[in-house]
Amino acid sequence: MKLVSFYRDGKSTYGLVKANGVVDLGQRYGTTWPTLRDVLAADGLAQVERETQDAAPDLSWEGLTLAPVIQNPDKIICIGLNYRDHVAETGRTLTEKPTLFARFAGSQVGHGQPLVKPAVSDEFDYEGELAVVIGRGGRHIAAADALSHIAGYACYNEGSVRDWQRHTSQFLAGKTFAGTGGFGPWLVTADEIPDPSRLTLETRLNGQVVQHTTTDLMITAIPEQIAYISTILPLLPGDVIVSGTPGGVGVKRKPQLFMRAGDVVEVEISQIGVLRNPVVAEA
Amino acid sequence: MKLVSFYRDGKSTYGLVKANGVVDLGQRYGTTWPTLRDVLAADGLAQVERETQDAAPDLSWEGLTLAPVIQNPDKIICIGLNYRDHVAETGRTLTEKPTLFARFAGSQVGHGQPLVKPAVSDEFDYEGELAVVIGRGGRHIAAADALSHIAGYACYNEGSVRDWQRHTSQFLAGKTFAGTGGFGPWLVTADEIPDPSRLTLETRLNGQVVQHTTTDLMITAIPEQIAYISTILPLLPGDVIVSGTPGGVGVKRKPQLFMRAGDVVEVEISQIGVLRNPVVAEA
Repeated sequence: MKLVSFYRDGKSTYGLVKANGVVDLGQRYGTTWPTLRDVLAADGLAQVERETQDAAPDLSWEGLTLAPVIQNPDKIICIGLNYRDHVAETGRTLTEKPTLFARFAGSQVGHGQPLVKPAVSDEFDYEGELAVVIGRGGRHIAAADALSHIAGYACYNEGSVRDWQRHTSQFLAGKTFAGTGGFGPWLVTADEIPDPSRLTLETRLNGQVVQHTTTDLMITAIPEQIAYISTILPLLPGDVIVSGTPGGVGVKRKPQLFMRAGDVVEVEISQIGVLRNPVVAEA
Repeated sequence: MKLVSFYRDGKSTYGLVKANGVVDLGQRYGTTWPTLRDVLAADGLAQVERETQDAAPDLSWEGLTLAPVIQNPDKIICIGLNYRDHVAETGRTLTEKPTLFARFAGSQVGHGQPLVKPAVSDEFDYEGELAVVIGRGGRHIAAADALSHIAGYACYNEGSVRDWQRHTSQFLAGKTFAGTGGFGPWLVTADEIPDPSRLTLETRLNGQVVQHTTTDLMITAIPEQIAYISTILPLLPGDVIVSGTPGGVGVKRKPQLFMRAGDVVEVEISQIGVLRNPVVAEA
């Protein structure tokens, strides 16, 4: 299944994507499960699939205003420096453990919505990444069991404000500006992607390929990310792990290549689709 | 006013602290404002004060099971390296901008509840800090207006798992273990603390003073913290800023001094009170 969060008549809802449109699931399940996160928390995906597989679309895909796939996660944890070519271009050294930092939900936008270049910076950079959405929560999840805790996958553009990221040793300031995290277009449920290490990821800025990798090149693979994070604290349904970006980021290019108003940036992942966002300047 | 979040009959509620007990505000306002955060979001403090100033307590303070002051903040942002003596003991250099990192709500415990030393580490360290709770949200808040956005203050013990904090360059892994962040005992509303730079903060481990400072020694003062953070993204009612710890942390002592099961740790701040937590080992 492909599931989306979107806005309808000014309200948040969510739906099932079909070839010819979108079934409004919020209309059907919203009183019990107000958000997609609530569906995951109730382990409701199988019920939704069973009850709506033959439903006719309520809306056409065109003209839909999409929200971040999960609008209200308890936490968003990003993995830094998780591809060797990106570690190399940053001049950093490999660490034995994964580099974790946070992003807040208020920084996210959905597919098709504008990414916002902050007024205080001209160093707004793309980072194409595979996002993992937790289905079944847990603490101390073993790597061998980790894939069974995943609800599905999406594309993420972990937009980074490089000068603010460098203000101190800690990345957070440059990683959670409002409107800088693209998350979409939809959640592809895990049954359709049995092995997330066999995907191809590409980032394009105005059509030019700027990042390209396969996900088997992650330094810390997704099961080990889940094991490490859940040693620290419980993962909850709807939590988002943004699994790292490959080489090719704009700040390390010569000449540097940053996103500007009017640009269009895309993150495409095989078996998922294309997350496309225009870039605007902060008003 | 002093406001607490607590558990009653297994449910979360919140209340007003009086000399002779606690008024259960959740009972009175819970259908409109289920949590203390909702009171702040509705700008409801004045109404609560007006309507409950003469109310008789519903519960005695003793035996109350307290929750973190704000249980469900949209975000918790910690300021690192914000006192010169702490920067010096870490061997780091001063930065022009404040060091920001995150903590997740699932890592917090209330006053009197146990702080949990993780099974995977013997380097569980205290960090006494002044917590700021946002009342009126906003973006691009000027430092000169920042105090008017504060709902109140509390004590925070920003318990840190030092070996995990050092796994990589980013602090998050050591800063958000389950049960490591003490937040309490209560919210003292900002009208009672007109100037948060005139407080005295002390941390005690088993009665021994291990940290002592005055809050005028912060490198980045609270108004400038709010201005900096709100440049990045909107602050929302109930958001928590944990404003930094002074020198004296256990990891930098000779010999090192870490928290162990059976210890009792206290953070006392003038005009607020004492946050006291026993320490237990993770089961």
